[in-house]
Amino acid sequence: MIETPLINKLAIIGTGLIGGSLARALKAQGAVAKVIGVGRNPQNLEKAMELGAIDAFTHDAGAAVVSADMVVLATPIGAMEDAFRQIAPALTPQAVVTDVGSVKAVVVAAARRHLGERLPRFVPGHPIAGTERSGVTASEKDLFQDRHVVLTPVAETEPQATALVRQMWEVTGSTVSEMTVAQHDHVLSATSHLPHVLAYTLVDHLAHREDSELLFRLAAGGFYDFTRIASSDPVMWRDICLGNREAITAAVRAYRDALDQMLDALDRGDGEQLSELFTHAKRARDRYIKQR
Amino acid sequence: MIETPLINKLAIIGTGLIGGSLARALKAQGAVAKVIGVGRNPQNLEKAMELGAIDAFTHDAGAAVVSADMVVLATPIGAMEDAFRQIAPALTPQAVVTDVGSVKAVVVAAARRHLGERLPRFVPGHPIAGTERSGVTASEKDLFQDRHVVLTPVAETEPQATALVRQMWEVTGSTVSEMTVAQHDHVLSATSHLPHVLAYTLVDHLAHREDSELLFRLAAGGFYDFTRIASSDPVMWRDICLGNREAITAAVRAYRDALDQMLDALDRGDGEQLSELFTHAKRARDRYIKQR
Repeated sequence: MIETPLINKLAIIGTGLIGGSLARALKAQGAVAKVIGVGRNPQNLEKAMELGAIDAFTHDAGAAVVSADMVVLATPIGAMEDAFRQIAPALTPQAVVTDVGSVKAVVVAAARRHLGERLPRFVPGHPIAGTERSGVTASEKDLFQDRHVVLTPVAETEPQATALVRQMWEVTGSTVSEMTVAQHDHVLSATSHLPHVLAYTLVDHLAHREDSELLFRLAAGGFYDFTRIASSDPVMWRDICLGNREAITAAVRAYRDALDQMLDALDRGDGEQLSELFTHAKRARDRYIKQR
Repeated sequence: MIETPLINKLAIIGTGLIGGSLARALKAQGAVAKVIGVGRNPQNLEKAMELGAIDAFTHDAGAAVVSADMVVLATPIGAMEDAFRQIAPALTPQAVVTDVGSVKAVVVAAARRHLGERLPRFVPGHPIAGTERSGVTASEKDLFQDRHVVLTPVAETEPQATALVRQMWEVTGSTVSEMTVAQHDHVLSATSHLPHVLAYTLVDHLAHREDSELLFRLAAGGFYDFTRIASSDPVMWRDICLGNREAITAAVRAYRDALDQMLDALDRGDGEQLSELFTHAKRARDRYIKQR
């Protein structure tokens, strides 16, 4: 337990899976004195109180950040512009603001439009964690344990602000690294956004087939895991796709080219090429598993 | 426990994940008196003995089936032709033969070439179970619990042979259904073979990128599950792709067309279409989860 809390008053704008898990992790470590949750769904906020994730809640983001020393934006990407607009006039000069968005360029652009002189206290961030579930009922205090958090400070960002956000995430058990906004959005388009698009496309495609009932009935465990991410929140993923559209489109296009080569090998019945590709993929994944 | 064993002597040709799990499931229920394992890898066969999956082993498939009343071919698809060739002369007229191949047309064709007058005692089958692991060390007696097994008897197949194979799988806790060879291969090309091809292609594609080390380091849980099947045995999957080439090629091509439509929506930044597709996919997957 930390004796003096790292954060005195934390405002969580968007008290869902990520916001709720962060609050619970910080509370479990005694790293925060008070948490105010902001959200639109009263039931979800009541649940957050029950779970001990938050100490109070309001529907007014502006009111929530008054006297907060840390503000975390944990709404879907599409709601962040509004959130910045609402909190900007109420932030104290000392308040540090961060977000948990899966795309960084659009969030930074929205921050630039609304934060004004508070911009240097904004630290763009992304905890690479989460599940296909959403809402505070899915939150867990250990969600960030042994996960990566990427911070993407911009030229104006104050190093002390970045340091505080880093400390906050380290308390949750995460490894924190820094990269540029562009690098983050490029990497995530390949490892997270592309797989989500592929999984959604597969399930939608199969669900439109005439024999879809039989298909799903006979689907095995491999299908279950492969399509897990297609159960993710559609609004969140629409926002990510629109927010990182160029990088995602490029990633999908590059994947489609790889699939065309695979089709070519299948068409030719080229067992040697298939076996080489499968072996290479298996080795790469097995290496990745060992790293984890 | 069943008092009189359903099977007196079971020969498992290919004592790996599926063959080993079947033997262990039947033994756990007292449904088999003696199991002979056949394989090429002595260590794997010793391990199968240790695990109690088999009571004896040999490298000679022909010797193994002498006096066996049930013979299960559980080798990769590419090794089944040889297996049929080796067992055909040694089968007793009473022996029932089945297989566990993920593709049925090629296995049936091989059976037709080699089984001769024993063909009516051959029941093509496919337990829709398995993991990305392989070898008898990965076997589990409960692997088939609550799973589907599909039998695809052909015109010549004796109903009593099908009934015995059905009974055997029911002992393992599976639900058994019957369909035609073509229907099986068509359904599985969509729900199993296609996802495997997509996952292998993604991992291979990302592993070839210059920044692949960074990509894999920052990959999250969603990526882990999405690519699990890309850790499957490459030889087994080469054989499946070659064995069900036409259906798989058609399935990949249809998926690529769906991906082109997705690319089009991304290009246009069509949030409404993306959100509709994601919602439709999520609903379909959530329905599928409920059925399981």
